[in-house]
Amino acid sequence: MKRTHYSKDITPDMNGSTVVINGWAHEIRDFGGLSFLIVRDREGLVQVTMPKKKVAKEIIDTVKGLSRESVVSVKGEVKAMEKAPNGYEVIPTAVEILARSEAPLPLDPTGKVPADLDTRLDSRFMDLRSPEVTAVFYVRAYMIRGIREYLSSQGCLEISTPKIVATATEGGTELFPISYFEREAFLNQSPQLYKQMMMAGGMDRVYEIGPIFRAEEHATRKHLNEATSIDVELSFATHEDAMQLLENTVAYAYAYVKERCRPQLKALNLDLQVPGTPFKRLSYREAIEIARQDPECAGLEYGDDLSTQAEHVVGQAIGEHYFIVDWPANIRAFYSQPCDDDPSICKAFDLMHPRMELASGAQREHRYERLVKKMVEKNLDPESFKFYLDSFRYGMPPHAGWGMGAERLLQTMLNLNNIREAVLFPRDRVRLTP
Amino acid sequence: MKRTHYSKDITPDMNGSTVVINGWAHEIRDFGGLSFLIVRDREGLVQVTMPKKKVAKEIIDTVKGLSRESVVSVKGEVKAMEKAPNGYEVIPTAVEILARSEAPLPLDPTGKVPADLDTRLDSRFMDLRSPEVTAVFYVRAYMIRGIREYLSSQGCLEISTPKIVATATEGGTELFPISYFEREAFLNQSPQLYKQMMMAGGMDRVYEIGPIFRAEEHATRKHLNEATSIDVELSFATHEDAMQLLENTVAYAYAYVKERCRPQLKALNLDLQVPGTPFKRLSYREAIEIARQDPECAGLEYGDDLSTQAEHVVGQAIGEHYFIVDWPANIRAFYSQPCDDDPSICKAFDLMHPRMELASGAQREHRYERLVKKMVEKNLDPESFKFYLDSFRYGMPPHAGWGMGAERLLQTMLNLNNIREAVLFPRDRVRLTP
Repeated sequence: MKRTHYSKDITPDMNGSTVVINGWAHEIRDFGGLSFLIVRDREGLVQVTMPKKKVAKEIIDTVKGLSRESVVSVKGEVKAMEKAPNGYEVIPTAVEILARSEAPLPLDPTGKVPADLDTRLDSRFMDLRSPEVTAVFYVRAYMIRGIREYLSSQGCLEISTPKIVATATEGGTELFPISYFEREAFLNQSPQLYKQMMMAGGMDRVYEIGPIFRAEEHATRKHLNEATSIDVELSFATHEDAMQLLENTVAYAYAYVKERCRPQLKALNLDLQVPGTPFKRLSYREAIEIARQDPECAGLEYGDDLSTQAEHVVGQAIGEHYFIVDWPANIRAFYSQPCDDDPSICKAFDLMHPRMELASGAQREHRYERLVKKMVEKNLDPESFKFYLDSFRYGMPPHAGWGMGAERLLQTMLNLNNIREAVLFPRDRVRLTP
Repeated sequence: MKRTHYSKDITPDMNGSTVVINGWAHEIRDFGGLSFLIVRDREGLVQVTMPKKKVAKEIIDTVKGLSRESVVSVKGEVKAMEKAPNGYEVIPTAVEILARSEAPLPLDPTGKVPADLDTRLDSRFMDLRSPEVTAVFYVRAYMIRGIREYLSSQGCLEISTPKIVATATEGGTELFPISYFEREAFLNQSPQLYKQMMMAGGMDRVYEIGPIFRAEEHATRKHLNEATSIDVELSFATHEDAMQLLENTVAYAYAYVKERCRPQLKALNLDLQVPGTPFKRLSYREAIEIARQDPECAGLEYGDDLSTQAEHVVGQAIGEHYFIVDWPANIRAFYSQPCDDDPSICKAFDLMHPRMELASGAQREHRYERLVKKMVEKNLDPESFKFYLDSFRYGMPPHAGWGMGAERLLQTMLNLNNIREAVLFPRDRVRLTP
């Protein structure tokens, strides 16, 4: 039977009308003279009520014979009913079984029997049926939709750049090698070089939301070997322009989700706060000073990378989204542009959530000779980056941009413990299936 | 100087106002008392006019000293001028050189000196500056935007599935192997298995627009080794539902581009016709019969794949988008569902443009035992697809879907000769850079 409504689209004022819902047998309860079937679809739950006196015996028997999580199509009459979950119930006139579920289930999608994350990921198809997990990926889709909408409104064109590349973005570490016909190639770690070439191509403002691949060996709650990167590059722009676009993008995504995903946020028991803009700007020097107040970070010196603990300490102190700016040039990528007055500092920035780094970016070095010099200083061979460097020789505009981890944005937005909860089918050192 | 307007946003009725434009020195012409600088940005051209009597000597000297394709920022006054390209010109009050171009250029972006495709792709950053090439990728961004908008309006949620996988979608051919830490893995040929698992997960209607990878060795004008696939999967849907969504998606994308990319279509000299829906449905048997009328295809028999020549002959005969349906089950993928009345035929379809295949899809076999049987018949080992097959055991709804090549859709929409013209940085057997 063809679906007429999702659960959320049925309301008590449809009292008396006929609907068809399709979904899973979430719960079956039998009280003798009265039995219930709770049908779950992507949008929520519907209570199908079967008083023995009003519903045909075949229907009641069919439902009683159902295994949990079987797929059903139910036709019935809407009855307004204050005590029911959404103020209505459905009295069935026909029930069709579309697929029977085996028992026992590999996981309990009602969440009453808790399972650890690995077990959940092993049976992700079943885990996804839990309303809290559905909600995460529902929000993810809207978060991405909001970001695209905002970036488009700001004149950014969506591009797709190659994932199979000949050269590493930032040198030879953390790469997955591929056999590409007779040659060796690599999975791209970032669209960085390609989006910069688009600036030389006159595409002005671009964005890409796509997979990136990093062969990091260590497993943490915030790293993935395959992640989704939200990349932006802007011509005729400074790092300050890029930071403004970034903070506005984040705030827009929060507001978009808050407005459009109310039932999902409720399922996650979350009162989402849209961050205020502009975000605080903290210099790298200030960040180091704050971190040093923590005994574990007392040894931290100017010029060191910020450790996870240092990020944690600073995040706790700030308590909201913030930028770290004015980074020492020698700990940032070769393509970051040094400051005009003090070239030991560069125009790079990181966007931080109190829990972790979300994005990093910079005004780029667009002057060919200086870029080559930087590359040599970082022990990179300009010859193997010729395809990239050539694009700086014939009119490369000043430009700036950033890359943000979509999973980290979702993880911090929804306060998920592990980044793997923000990916449908995560990839890490040990996990290659499903 | 901070840009105030793109070229397209300046109009003759802004006569007298001050603007700042940023872009490339597309052409420089000097007639003694009068010289011109044509500035090109992503949106078009601006004529900067410099009468010797009205413009400061330093500005005129600066412009005369410019090499073509240098990057400039021009501040000036808008002057309505019927004879100028867009009905206005700009009289400069300040010109800043942001980046000088070396000479000679690797390519001529005005298109006056033609170059073959390989040369163009070698210097793609310069090729992109030609207004016709900019137009292709401008349209691509809008085509994708329109498709997302339409699919979202139809209740589809965007998902991201892994590109690094342990098993081939349809068996072991045409795969790129990856070294994944201690193991061998592969680049995914299609999100097929994952989007089907999302149906078991209750996500109901999903889409993904992302990269797919095929190690096809032969080079043609319509094949890529890395392409963008537009994938859709729908629960509680038949192949006919999937075909309707597909034809409507294509028509919507055409209409979206036609309305929003007028200057780009003009640059490409294209009068885009939005295809009418529904598209014609042709059975596989009918297609074979039409193809056989061509001497080259006379030997084609029922059960053969359609050759490129056969596709061409049928495409010429039909002359517009069409579907081929009622395929012999044994030449389609294992996950296509056989017809109920004649299991030698299956519920698969291909969407054809007169020039080539654009998409293929099917109602899927959602019944576990039958699916396993099909797999064995196709010499696939169910054990290595366990992660996929398990999702069919606990309530898999009936479902249908399709995958469409984004580059083929763009190539046929814009009548591009070679599919490489529809990709920023194409990958084929010989091309791995830029």
